[in-house]
Amino acid sequence: MPLTAHRPAENPILTPAMLRPSRPDLEVVGVFNPAAVRHGDETVLLLRVAEAPPHVRGEVAAAVYEPERGELAVTRWRVTDAGVDAHDPRLVSVGGRTWLTSISHLRVARSRDGIHFDVEPTPPLAPANAYEAFGVEDPRITRLDDTYWINYTAVSPLGIATALASTRDFRTFERHGVIFPPNNRDVTILPERLGDHYVALHRPMPSGLGTPAIWVATSPDLFAWGEHRFVAGARPEMWDDTKIGGGAVPFRVRWRGRDAWLAVYHGVTSPDSYALGALLLDADDPSRVLARSATPILAPEAPYEREGFFGGVVFTCGLVTDGDLVRVYYGAADGVTAVADLSLDEILSSVEAL
Amino acid sequence: MPLTAHRPAENPILTPAMLRPSRPDLEVVGVFNPAAVRHGDETVLLLRVAEAPPHVRGEVAAAVYEPERGELAVTRWRVTDAGVDAHDPRLVSVGGRTWLTSISHLRVARSRDGIHFDVEPTPPLAPANAYEAFGVEDPRITRLDDTYWINYTAVSPLGIATALASTRDFRTFERHGVIFPPNNRDVTILPERLGDHYVALHRPMPSGLGTPAIWVATSPDLFAWGEHRFVAGARPEMWDDTKIGGGAVPFRVRWRGRDAWLAVYHGVTSPDSYALGALLLDADDPSRVLARSATPILAPEAPYEREGFFGGVVFTCGLVTDGDLVRVYYGAADGVTAVADLSLDEILSSVEAL
Repeated sequence: MPLTAHRPAENPILTPAMLRPSRPDLEVVGVFNPAAVRHGDETVLLLRVAEAPPHVRGEVAAAVYEPERGELAVTRWRVTDAGVDAHDPRLVSVGGRTWLTSISHLRVARSRDGIHFDVEPTPPLAPANAYEAFGVEDPRITRLDDTYWINYTAVSPLGIATALASTRDFRTFERHGVIFPPNNRDVTILPERLGDHYVALHRPMPSGLGTPAIWVATSPDLFAWGEHRFVAGARPEMWDDTKIGGGAVPFRVRWRGRDAWLAVYHGVTSPDSYALGALLLDADDPSRVLARSATPILAPEAPYEREGFFGGVVFTCGLVTDGDLVRVYYGAADGVTAVADLSLDEILSSVEAL
Repeated sequence: MPLTAHRPAENPILTPAMLRPSRPDLEVVGVFNPAAVRHGDETVLLLRVAEAPPHVRGEVAAAVYEPERGELAVTRWRVTDAGVDAHDPRLVSVGGRTWLTSISHLRVARSRDGIHFDVEPTPPLAPANAYEAFGVEDPRITRLDDTYWINYTAVSPLGIATALASTRDFRTFERHGVIFPPNNRDVTILPERLGDHYVALHRPMPSGLGTPAIWVATSPDLFAWGEHRFVAGARPEMWDDTKIGGGAVPFRVRWRGRDAWLAVYHGVTSPDSYALGALLLDADDPSRVLARSATPILAPEAPYEREGFFGGVVFTCGLVTDGDLVRVYYGAADGVTAVADLSLDEILSSVEAL
């Protein structure tokens, strides 16, 4: 029986047209992949806001943060020039080097009802060093005691790494540097210590030997991570047969009379289609997979999911729960933010024990 | 002025013919890339010993450790079969999957004079889990107080990771799991704490965005690593223009009136040629490169370096020092172990300040 995913009529709840750019010479081209958390009586999203130089016909452009100068610089190429490869709308490759066609920062949005959000105009986390020259992307928020820990993807010519920041109030933020070296993204930190250690799922991206897969690591302090173990990889001939990665921050559930972590993750199948599924992990040893979705719990079906900047994508970095309600915030088609309300019971009934 | 590298007449000091295989159904095909350390009045090497199933004409084979069964299994392919790519002697690729043509374990060798070694017959560190299914390779040894910490490359279908082990006596060894997730190898742990933290150079291997480069990380306990920062990458049009990685464990030197870390590293140029150079790193902040070799301090010149299992390679995982003497142990042509004696003064005079 397929799951019921209720998409409110307000979807997509955030679009580029609703946001002012951070600079007058850039356009907002995406607002997607938000982290989500309850803070007081509000739902707070930390939005990935993608900006790009204005489009010029026949050209492709990249805005890059230059740490030496402390500002952005824009480079343009003719798409017809020899060696310019712009077939993926997210990238431009020239002579073996790759740039991104947009540069992302993170912005806070607040809501009382979880559907209508006020977006703050100033980015509290924008590219600020060499590890972030191509942007900061795909945040996740984990509350531990009274601190919100934010991990995000730091993208640069040095690779795709994961960095850490923190805040107590979503007004002042502190940076804590790179916690997973390249290439590694889609990190989700569990909202509890297990024993003496913090725990995170992460997604190394080996090539040649190995493929992108979900691993688990532990940390004494949230800054240094070790005890790396494999958790789950892509599965041939299934909806997640190309690659997988962490999605929303895992949360504790009861399943068949035992405690477990429910991790909503993304899976990719070819040709590019990003869908969401569930992993149930042992409560004490999250490297042990108890159960997993045989079919997606959310797949790109709505028009704003199927068509857009990069069509065929639903991708989550955060959800909030309330009893049986699992409200998933997600990026649709790498361009807009949407909401889907799922039933926790339905998710737990749908996973297949391994 | 080129450096003087004295290669003793005994070179190569260790060859596969000197070693018995660990199993009667395998042949030793390489003994190379040893870690090196002084232990009491002996020089101890931890050798990478590569073994392979006996060669059958027209075939290529891979021996893989199967953790479920706790033993090796051998697979063979006809080199002429469709989809079989065996052009790199180190690898066989079939239908997008890759295996190694040899499987490595680590073995202890001891010497009084540093040239003539007795090799122990039993491997203290051999493939023993899923992360090591394709072998354990390229160890480095760092002494901290009275413990020798051994990091080594754990290779498997899950990727190329770095794992940690320790010993006090080179007789009993303890494993400590994966400390750097895939793909990451060529880790060297500094032999001192800086402030409260241990420090390691490591070599993430991003692809697409980013290229293999040397980074530094810190750790409170040697098991969990964070505070990742970029140190040095490949340099266009130079001897290390394709990729670089850590070599021997760095050691403290005086250079131009200040303390620094001297890291002998490897650089690769195309077509594949692996040579060694020196990086001088700030004593207190090893992410700061003070000086670097403009030309190699050791390059493949001798016949056993230019020709062999994989010709054109000198690759070090360890050296020992005695006053001005820097005795570099290195793998030659991915097949044998050799020694080169260099002068510390000459190395320090040859590097170019940055």
